[in-house]
Amino acid sequence: MSTFGNHFRVTTYGESHCLSVGCIVDGCPPGMELTEDDIQPQMTRRRPGQSKITTPRDEKDRVQIQSGTELGITLGTPIGLRVMNENQRPKDYGNSTMDKYPRPSHADWTYLEKYGVKASSGGGRSSARETIGRVAAGAIAEKYLRLAYGVEIVAFVSSIGSEFLCPPTSKHPSNTTNPEYLQLLDSINRETVDSFLPVRCPNTDAAKRMEALVSEFRDREDSIGGTVTCVIRNAPSGLGEPCFDKLEASLAHAMLSIPATKGFEIGSGFAGTRIPGSIHNDPFVRNRADDTLPLPVQEPLVETPLSQSSTPGRTARPKLTTKTNNSGGIQGGISNGAPIYFSVAFKPPATIGQAQQTASYGLEEGILEAKGRHDPCVVPRAVPIVETMAALVIMDAVMAQLGRGAARDLLPEIKGREVLRGLPMPTESEKNASVANGAVA
Amino acid sequence: MSTFGNHFRVTTYGESHCLSVGCIVDGCPPGMELTEDDIQPQMTRRRPGQSKITTPRDEKDRVQIQSGTELGITLGTPIGLRVMNENQRPKDYGNSTMDKYPRPSHADWTYLEKYGVKASSGGGRSSARETIGRVAAGAIAEKYLRLAYGVEIVAFVSSIGSEFLCPPTSKHPSNTTNPEYLQLLDSINRETVDSFLPVRCPNTDAAKRMEALVSEFRDREDSIGGTVTCVIRNAPSGLGEPCFDKLEASLAHAMLSIPATKGFEIGSGFAGTRIPGSIHNDPFVRNRADDTLPLPVQEPLVETPLSQSSTPGRTARPKLTTKTNNSGGIQGGISNGAPIYFSVAFKPPATIGQAQQTASYGLEEGILEAKGRHDPCVVPRAVPIVETMAALVIMDAVMAQLGRGAARDLLPEIKGREVLRGLPMPTESEKNASVANGAVA
Amino acid sequence: MSTFGNHFRVTTYGESHCLSVGCIVDGCPPGMELTEDDIQPQMTRRRPGQSKITTPRDEKDRVQIQSGTELGITLGTPIGLRVMNENQRPKDYGNSTMDKYPRPSHADWTYLEKYGVKASSGGGRSSARETIGRVAAGAIAEKYLRLAYGVEIVAFVSSIGSEFLCPPTSKHPSNTTNPEYLQLLDSINRETVDSFLPVRCPNTDAAKRMEALVSEFRDREDSIGGTVTCVIRNAPSGLGEPCFDKLEASLAHAMLSIPATKGFEIGSGFAGTRIPGSIHNDPFVRNRADDTLPLPVQEPLVETPLSQSSTPGRTARPKLTTKTNNSGGIQGGISNGAPIYFSVAFKPPATIGQAQQTASYGLEEGILEAKGRHDPCVVPRAVPIVETMAALVIMDAVMAQLGRGAARDLLPEIKGREVLRGLPMPTESEKNASVANGAVA
Amino acid sequence: MSTFGNHFRVTTYGESHCLSVGCIVDGCPPGMELTEDDIQPQMTRRRPGQSKITTPRDEKDRVQIQSGTELGITLGTPIGLRVMNENQRPKDYGNSTMDKYPRPSHADWTYLEKYGVKASSGGGRSSARETIGRVAAGAIAEKYLRLAYGVEIVAFVSSIGSEFLCPPTSKHPSNTTNPEYLQLLDSINRETVDSFLPVRCPNTDAAKRMEALVSEFRDREDSIGGTVTCVIRNAPSGLGEPCFDKLEASLAHAMLSIPATKGFEIGSGFAGTRIPGSIHNDPFVRNRADDTLPLPVQEPLVETPLSQSSTPGRTARPKLTTKTNNSGGIQGGISNGAPIYFSVAFKPPATIGQAQQTASYGLEEGILEAKGRHDPCVVPRAVPIVETMAALVIMDAVMAQLGRGAARDLLPEIKGREVLRGLPMPTESEKNASVANGAVA
Repeated sequence: MSTFGNHFRVTTYGESHCLSVGCIVDGCPPGMELTEDDIQPQMTRRRPGQSKITTPRDEKDRVQIQSGTELGITLGTPIGLRVMNENQRPKDYGNSTMDKYPRPSHADWTYLEKYGVKASSGGGRSSARETIGRVAAGAIAEKYLRLAYGVEIVAFVSSIGSEFLCPPTSKHPSNTTNPEYLQLLDSINRETVDSFLPVRCPNTDAAKRMEALVSEFRDREDSIGGTVTCVIRNAPSGLGEPCFDKLEASLAHAMLSIPATKGFEIGSGFAGTRIPGSIHNDPFVRNRADDTLPLPVQEPLVETPLSQSSTPGRTARPKLTTKTNNSGGIQGGISNGAPIYFSVAFKPPATIGQAQQTASYGLEEGILEAKGRHDPCVVPRAVPIVETMAALVIMDAVMAQLGRGAARDLLPEIKGREVLRGLPMPTESEKNASVANGAVA
Repeated sequence: MSTFGNHFRVTTYGESHCLSVGCIVDGCPPGMELTEDDIQPQMTRRRPGQSKITTPRDEKDRVQIQSGTELGITLGTPIGLRVMNENQRPKDYGNSTMDKYPRPSHADWTYLEKYGVKASSGGGRSSARETIGRVAAGAIAEKYLRLAYGVEIVAFVSSIGSEFLCPPTSKHPSNTTNPEYLQLLDSINRETVDSFLPVRCPNTDAAKRMEALVSEFRDREDSIGGTVTCVIRNAPSGLGEPCFDKLEASLAHAMLSIPATKGFEIGSGFAGTRIPGSIHNDPFVRNRADDTLPLPVQEPLVETPLSQSSTPGRTARPKLTTKTNNSGGIQGGISNGAPIYFSVAFKPPATIGQAQQTASYGLEEGILEAKGRHDPCVVPRAVPIVETMAALVIMDAVMAQLGRGAARDLLPEIKGREVLRGLPMPTESEKNASVANGAVA
Repeated sequence: MSTFGNHFRVTTYGESHCLSVGCIVDGCPPGMELTEDDIQPQMTRRRPGQSKITTPRDEKDRVQIQSGTELGITLGTPIGLRVMNENQRPKDYGNSTMDKYPRPSHADWTYLEKYGVKASSGGGRSSARETIGRVAAGAIAEKYLRLAYGVEIVAFVSSIGSEFLCPPTSKHPSNTTNPEYLQLLDSINRETVDSFLPVRCPNTDAAKRMEALVSEFRDREDSIGGTVTCVIRNAPSGLGEPCFDKLEASLAHAMLSIPATKGFEIGSGFAGTRIPGSIHNDPFVRNRADDTLPLPVQEPLVETPLSQSSTPGRTARPKLTTKTNNSGGIQGGISNGAPIYFSVAFKPPATIGQAQQTASYGLEEGILEAKGRHDPCVVPRAVPIVETMAALVIMDAVMAQLGRGAARDLLPEIKGREVLRGLPMPTESEKNASVANGAVA
Repeated sequence: MSTFGNHFRVTTYGESHCLSVGCIVDGCPPGMELTEDDIQPQMTRRRPGQSKITTPRDEKDRVQIQSGTELGITLGTPIGLRVMNENQRPKDYGNSTMDKYPRPSHADWTYLEKYGVKASSGGGRSSARETIGRVAAGAIAEKYLRLAYGVEIVAFVSSIGSEFLCPPTSKHPSNTTNPEYLQLLDSINRETVDSFLPVRCPNTDAAKRMEALVSEFRDREDSIGGTVTCVIRNAPSGLGEPCFDKLEASLAHAMLSIPATKGFEIGSGFAGTRIPGSIHNDPFVRNRADDTLPLPVQEPLVETPLSQSSTPGRTARPKLTTKTNNSGGIQGGISNGAPIYFSVAFKPPATIGQAQQTASYGLEEGILEAKGRHDPCVVPRAVPIVETMAALVIMDAVMAQLGRGAARDLLPEIKGREVLRGLPMPTESEKNASVANGAVA
């Protein structure tokens, strides 16, 4: 099914050549200011043909709100979102080489196997165009998270081919023990990432090497993959459900639902399998920072005008935090308040200009040649999509936990419950703090 | 929520120290032979203390079917499954060091943040004991898949620390282009894997090196992680839903829901980001093998007595297959009939014997020392759990696709639909073949 | 949430004064011919201002398919449907009496209680306009059910105020024992119902009395309620899930989700509580009719052109049927193949022209006068909405059962299973018949 | 599927003759005191053989908590509940008349149609024994609602056959305009209802007439149906979702999922179709009662010891209430804070002692005679099951709304939003009151 989320629920529709693409967002909190201007920036960031100088007046992929708001304020009812397809039917359908061959490593063949019919574009819903609906929905989630908690979600390109933003060293075989890398995760923002267009890798040297590599692949009509890393800052603790819906499981699900993804790792990830537990464990330390999270950022993450916001949602920080963060902000499937970070692997694009020996729908061997210009590397454009899916996961988890917390808060206090909190002899003030401290609730 | 799956739906309950653990399996097809003997083998394989000589008479973790079968046949109604907990309440609750400190990189602290109460065991549902219910349910799914399609699901340890089953070489930087590795994926079975206990890595040399490594970590009261690789053979094509519920997304979700996991990769995975598209693409070739899948295996995968089965479910193979399999059996989120394989990263166990400097629930710095014997590496025991979650994902996808296919088959044939199948001039026989060929349907 | 169904899933959006209303239909079987012409007839039947002579060229409430079909054939992917709102913003918003007072027995007040904001129209999503998306989706479900099973769904007005289509008599205190009524259920079709516009009560005398009653209420600016009865013929047996999702429970849910409904009864309903069990029980008789259901009707139910259909979906009838049908075609929550029929109670419309003493949002007492022409009785217009919701319930149940049946059919036959079928000594032919007989499967 | 609810989710298992029946309750708020003593009373009330003198020491149908609590406090994790079946396998299975014939108006035949196998008891999950799991889960929901909001849910028998608790009169054709009846709804409690055992109709005269009627039917080995009416007091406003999941739709779904039900009506119900809108509309009046709901009752509804509760959950009453309550406490699908009441129709039990002419599984005509003592009227025993399902619906709706409200409360206040609340010129205090007044939130 084309639905994501249980509490903030997004349902998308549309393929490459139909009339429009879009989505319905159900469960958006009522009373939030929302117009198309909140949604358009990420739509524009995901469009093809991004370069350092994107014109803000670009009229393509304009999103239009159909319902769910009035006078620019969310009503709490489903928000319909729609973007017109400009190129609704391919001109030469049925006559081209591409119609004769299922494209290797594309969805053309499997869609036919699944449905018994195929869209003119081959794997209809597997098109990158399908992601438009998601990105629109994600922008709404992001706005809420920013207003309510000051959540910041920033993704960037961390490798293309064998060119890395932060290559493993003998001292730091895993990035996650490299202070420079951790410092980047703490401070990176979208403006900085976009200043490194077209590759969106926030390091001058690495960006140059990546640009050169992509050019090389473009020149020989080949393609190359890469990884996107994403950090989520200021997400409250307590997010994620035990057992099947651990927060990292939901993130992995979300990320592997993005076209062309092949892998996901949270925190120390695969490198973490090679670190001894005595180093990998993140010891607790008292959270000496303010007891409250900072007010949500006043400056917009991208160009969203947020200056009017005066947010009441100061949330108590957890009393404990961790000294290191190999866990990636999640322990036992539940967020602990530290930055959540993860990486996603993208394969090389399947559409290449080189001729490919393959077989036709009619089971005959032959040569497929894809005409036209093809993107040799999709990773930079994937950046806003990764952010989007992260926002949808966090938003859904936040709403799940808010309900639970609010339900618990209506219950009478139970005497002697301290022992269940690991506090053999609590003072009164400690006890109250510990309760107030209850994560999202 | 503690529920997995939409069509074959598993809901689990239970934590470390409660009366029992178990699950309800809803949606199991009616008319399948099923007794505890079908379920117990995997239960036993996941138990702690596995060695090469596991006694089949072990009375621990005995599963008992509560409902949903009669005379050893499934009724189609919910199957209740239950396993008693032997050690229901910790003796020294409230007095030990472990009660005073949230264990680093465990779920103790985040559970308290989430719920405001904590179980005596810390992160109650994050216990390995929680996986018992899943494994019981997975065994039912596996039996169905084996009877209906001859599906074989085999997982094994592919690395511990920096010891690899199949290390990258200069010729094969990615395993997925290494013929030796691909041959292993095609032929490995559970008996072979278990013959390499205690490490379950099916290569004599690698297994020895891994055993030595684990011993070393045990001796210094430290721990180490590793990876488990899993292959699913004979799964029908057409599984997985476009968009959010791509098959690899569901697998990633399932795998990252296993305690202690940090990463997931399908097919070429992270290494695939470094392979040029011209090599990474899997060209199509005519499926010259028999037009039907082999009859499901007559010999049991483990010790399950299946000899009485005479399966009617011969399924048409897809007409095309791929020459290489960097895709890992999934394209555009949908299975193509080739073997599905993926790897899962497990971090080093958080519980170590070494003293750890950390902070208490009461926010005071101190030293946590975990008494007792601890498992320095959980990867071998994770093998049946990975198989279980794979079975649950495939089973749910099979039932989703069976419904769709059956619904489609009731529709009248549409004239001229050939063009939608990429077949400009089909002969009658080709047309019929192509229809019959419709994946699961 | 604004989603209905698990397998054929409809998500709607839109309120009275937004840009458009519509829905996404997810899970529609692929390979079905579908254009706007299949959907428009029911859209037109639900529009206000219906009379005996509805022009087919009416351009209002035109539905437009956004996605999910190509060349007029469903792809299996989500179908986006959209209808423009003509009157997007009320002219005099904020100034009228209606803005000052929550309308009695409307949703204005409860929406404000729920969301803390209110749409300009009061209860935004409670508007009759919300039902447009449902009706569009229902038309797709209906088409599938007609093509696959020859399902016929026909609703009609059975009472307005105290005027009944078939009043209880001393001989037949319950309609369900009245042969005349049962005959009507067996034969009624939509053309006949619509020939009794404006009241849609298929009996000349009753229709006249109802028209007079409605006129009387219109004249005194008051309103009156009524009941709609609906029959579903040719639905396969085996639909509905045990326990919580019994077929009648899903129907009740669906019907009570229609605005202004107050009650639901299946089969004998409330009158059935007064019939002795010895009469109420429906004894079984051999199904002497053909062993197969008739081919789906060749003539369109409304004006949908279906003449090109040549349906392969001949389904085995159950071997047993019931002599009477107090059960309303459902026993133990599962359909038995007999006609399913039920009635729905609609309250008098809350908007009346008469002045009403009430209180304002500002908590002051006052008089609310609703200007303009109001519909004194909505029951005739509710007819296609009742049919729609019935179609959505049956469609979802059919797809659930098709998946289960297809899964079961892949299992090997079990020896001795006859005893589980209540057949102590089955002959071979009986056994086979009994298997083939397995309902939807 | 055997699952009810999205936020407080109950999954049940078990049929008549299996090892045990039970359920898993997922989503129960953490930190609530809960032991078997909270659950047992309703279990006992639903047992067969109720009379005025039920022994509290009855050892049958004892529920046992498997998980999800520790030291008598809920952990927030799934609560497993289990009740042993005493009579696990019928003695004479396969030989009796009952095995040869599908019982008329039972689920035997439809289960066989659905699943292709049948349980020894016929319609396995359609057994009254299936309701045990629900009732156990409902008791947990009820306890929460009582502690958090002082919710009171009381059901009673309102008719058996043609004997009514409150028969329609010429002055009050609908009960809902009869002050005596409304007074009863406001004050009835479970002790009073149980004091009228065995019929549970809280009126001495009516109860006598009903007892006589039931005896009469028992004597002639026949059966008779009836109605149960239920009132829910102190439920907060704002419950229920627009569109498909209106609160009355969820209640109707829940009630029609109870075995043997044939109808549901909310508020004025079917009688309401005959009341003019000018009378049926419920005008608003200022809520002159205290601005806060009374503290939850200190005395237990049944024998549950609640005396230790000191509830903090004083909830603001809505500022407006309605003068009459034909709406049954729900408008536009959303609760308005007034008592919610509805009635449920139960058919006469299908199992009767009289011989019945019917057909066998083998398609032969014959006579079915059900030996043994049968319950001629199930309505009194249905009382706690109706209460249970009401509790599950309200609990799920409360948790949905709490999450939404908590999410909204984190948003910054929007200037000028007053106009969206129907308040052209709010004073500051009114504005604040109106915000605070936001239903559950």
